[in-house]
Amino acid sequence: MDYLRNAWYVAALSSELGDKPVARRLFDCDMAIFRTQDGAIGAVADRCPHRFAPLSMGAVRGEALECAYHGLKFGRDGRCAHNPHGDGRIPRCADLPAWPVAERYGFVWVWPGDPARADASLIPHLPFNDDPARFAPVYGYLDVAANYQLVVDNLLDLSHVEYLHPMFAQPEGVSAHKTQLIVEDDVVISKRWKPNVAIQGLARLFWTSPSQRFDARAHMTWRAPSAMIFDLGGTECGAPDEDGVCLPQAHLITPASEFRCHYFWSLSRNRKIDDAQAGDHIREVTQRVFATEDVPMIEAQQRNMGAVSDIMSLRPISLEPDAPAVRARRILAEKIRLEQEAARAAAE
Amino acid sequence: MDYLRNAWYVAALSSELGDKPVARRLFDCDMAIFRTQDGAIGAVADRCPHRFAPLSMGAVRGEALECAYHGLKFGRDGRCAHNPHGDGRIPRCADLPAWPVAERYGFVWVWPGDPARADASLIPHLPFNDDPARFAPVYGYLDVAANYQLVVDNLLDLSHVEYLHPMFAQPEGVSAHKTQLIVEDDVVISKRWKPNVAIQGLARLFWTSPSQRFDARAHMTWRAPSAMIFDLGGTECGAPDEDGVCLPQAHLITPASEFRCHYFWSLSRNRKIDDAQAGDHIREVTQRVFATEDVPMIEAQQRNMGAVSDIMSLRPISLEPDAPAVRARRILAEKIRLEQEAARAAAE
Amino acid sequence: MDYLRNAWYVAALSSELGDKPVARRLFDCDMAIFRTQDGAIGAVADRCPHRFAPLSMGAVRGEALECAYHGLKFGRDGRCAHNPHGDGRIPRCADLPAWPVAERYGFVWVWPGDPARADASLIPHLPFNDDPARFAPVYGYLDVAANYQLVVDNLLDLSHVEYLHPMFAQPEGVSAHKTQLIVEDDVVISKRWKPNVAIQGLARLFWTSPSQRFDARAHMTWRAPSAMIFDLGGTECGAPDEDGVCLPQAHLITPASEFRCHYFWSLSRNRKIDDAQAGDHIREVTQRVFATEDVPMIEAQQRNMGAVSDIMSLRPISLEPDAPAVRARRILAEKIRLEQEAARAAAE
Repeated sequence: MDYLRNAWYVAALSSELGDKPVARRLFDCDMAIFRTQDGAIGAVADRCPHRFAPLSMGAVRGEALECAYHGLKFGRDGRCAHNPHGDGRIPRCADLPAWPVAERYGFVWVWPGDPARADASLIPHLPFNDDPARFAPVYGYLDVAANYQLVVDNLLDLSHVEYLHPMFAQPEGVSAHKTQLIVEDDVVISKRWKPNVAIQGLARLFWTSPSQRFDARAHMTWRAPSAMIFDLGGTECGAPDEDGVCLPQAHLITPASEFRCHYFWSLSRNRKIDDAQAGDHIREVTQRVFATEDVPMIEAQQRNMGAVSDIMSLRPISLEPDAPAVRARRILAEKIRLEQEAARAAAE
Repeated sequence: MDYLRNAWYVAALSSELGDKPVARRLFDCDMAIFRTQDGAIGAVADRCPHRFAPLSMGAVRGEALECAYHGLKFGRDGRCAHNPHGDGRIPRCADLPAWPVAERYGFVWVWPGDPARADASLIPHLPFNDDPARFAPVYGYLDVAANYQLVVDNLLDLSHVEYLHPMFAQPEGVSAHKTQLIVEDDVVISKRWKPNVAIQGLARLFWTSPSQRFDARAHMTWRAPSAMIFDLGGTECGAPDEDGVCLPQAHLITPASEFRCHYFWSLSRNRKIDDAQAGDHIREVTQRVFATEDVPMIEAQQRNMGAVSDIMSLRPISLEPDAPAVRARRILAEKIRLEQEAARAAAE
Repeated sequence: MDYLRNAWYVAALSSELGDKPVARRLFDCDMAIFRTQDGAIGAVADRCPHRFAPLSMGAVRGEALECAYHGLKFGRDGRCAHNPHGDGRIPRCADLPAWPVAERYGFVWVWPGDPARADASLIPHLPFNDDPARFAPVYGYLDVAANYQLVVDNLLDLSHVEYLHPMFAQPEGVSAHKTQLIVEDDVVISKRWKPNVAIQGLARLFWTSPSQRFDARAHMTWRAPSAMIFDLGGTECGAPDEDGVCLPQAHLITPASEFRCHYFWSLSRNRKIDDAQAGDHIREVTQRVFATEDVPMIEAQQRNMGAVSDIMSLRPISLEPDAPAVRARRILAEKIRLEQEAARAAAE
């Protein structure tokens, strides 16, 4: 299907890449992602040109990935670097497709578009994952059998929390929130906050002051194609945001194929940053909520949509909180259209 | 595929409908079936018009079904009754398809045809499920991965009992039975009895007289589309049927799709009607025989038929005991033809 | 798909055929394979002509196979031999397709081609499975979700042992072997040996002399369509092969369908032939290596080839050790071409 190609997407958590390669389908391509002895990361096609064995079943040997079936070795650039058989000559056409890769903020990023344009400075900024003096992050990953835009929709309409996540629902209900939609160029910001309410939600886990009420906020910022930064927090009523509990998050969705995607997330905290047990707990709770409440709903949506991936083509009715997701879908569609137009022009 | 639409089919056991909705595919439609606080039952399309969430994942709130994703509420008539978002207006086109429903004899019935013709008096009569002074019923349900007519065939040719159900087979074999086929208008009755044989079969569980022999009967009555009443029993040799052990049953088959169906059954008894343990036992035995002997065979038939649902189109050879099922198939096909003809005429 | 039809293929291990029929798909046909009371074996279509029940769910009664659903009985020749219903006449068109079968060397062989040409002398010779004074065999079977030729490729290029089977890899690596390719008429022999190396591999389990080094050999002989004899062994350096440990094997691959096959194997030994525990051990090790190392790789290859079964059509690069498999594929393709040409000529 049509993806925005000149963009960084997350391919893996940094922590997934130990001494074994990871097999992952991304943008309809099967990739073998591996970390060499030097610590650098490669992403190559997961199909040896010799007998089509998955290279992800192979082993890292120094700076190369060795095929588990007959021992051809390939570098991070996809070049066949060693043939152990016969006179050892490297046959023609033995190289693999390879993709630009970067590692930053605890994630491995891959660029499916023009390699010449793979500028690491375009990676979404997640400073809270790179500031150990102030924040401690935890990470998670979910495989979702649904089009990636359904996950984006889920995150851009947090009114679902009141219904899908009873643990985080509010006695006052969905109408208790104030909301604001900001669209700045290519960025969609969906703000959602509740001043002066009873302490609740994840922030409660880190609340230490004697106050019984706080100002709660849950602001989602989307950037094309599918990177979201979630500013979740709570402060003493009237105090500045940064003085309170800050739980800034990244929600980074990568299409595997039209009907499957990868959901990578991180959650940083500015409290109990040296408390590993608190980190484990919040990681476990967050992953469980996503895995048992959001993912089953999103996959059910996709099943109910049958062989259609674009929900808008099925003419859903629209409610007020759909506005941010609708805006984001429009921006992304336009960016894909422009990119394809430019590619056609360049090809002529 | 083509179904007889102006007819009642069982959608669920009454006992399945507690405080959670039931998701069930019926006649190629996914339905959410739910019981409201008043005890009334609704059957609506299992797809919220907002984001296509399955409403069967939702919750009953008073007389409405609330979507688990963003909280729209719907009545039993499919009407969207509440929008908790924004100004609360109900958007246009927010209503759901809904089907006529009735609850009777321990079953929930749904009518897939013209709602104006959904007359509850057309529900098959199962008086033995509604006569607690004389009969105690037990119920069961099986999901079968096969065309529904293969289950009807199974029930209309009970010669299979001698081969498929060793527990109920007779030493005298298949030829020991007397049989009679009666076709009255749209009803097919396949009678099968053995006068003066050794006590055996399910009736044995309830036999109390000192007699060692009895008159056994197993009469199946089919009504279009796929409702069968099974008069199973045994009496002292020569005595009237109603004096003996009577185990009247309903076998009610509902198509889910061309290759899947729902098999609902009940078995009533006129002995040990206050003995819950006897009920549990006969329920367990019956369900086990169906689940481990009939269903695997019927599903294997369907697999052997590949992508064909109409066994007759594969030109099976016919044996004598096939006659009742062949007659029932012909009657049903003619009724479907007439119904479609009438629908076309009405549409012109 | 196109198979070489006038050839014997293994349908089952002899030990699989007890008193229950075996269901097996072979060359796109579902067969019921059964052993009658006399010990003879039949292979008939696994679909009763009455209601399409699988006959493999039935029971052997004397010399016939009885359908589990309504009791028709069939002989090894496929003829309907008994109808228990009505007047007992055998209906027309009640016979089943049946295939020539032979039992030899611990395997059941079936001939999918012209029955008139099913000459048992054409069964591949496996004398080591029929010589209890000198050899004790063990047997195994694996179901492989891949085209059968990928398994042949695996066996004709044993350089994969160095990479896929760490337990049997050699410190000297793949280049330590001498190899020779012999093509004699329709036979491909891929020889592979290592003179004067440290005792290793399966032969080690049976080595009794004080020598620390031996001459090792691993010679694979392929005959169309997919029968391989593997002469694995090791002797005192310079001694004749037959004086050492001999572990002659059969690797017999039978297509189930384009994307599935059956892998039957035997391994005979000329040492510890009365030691059942040694037999169990070598059987368990061999089966485990195939099941956990070869089969996952071959199935992954097939998945990576998508809906293509002929690897050559995807233009893989060729390495030196591919030569035997490439020759075998060419011989088989030519034999299939000639057979189909002859069939067309005969049909005109």
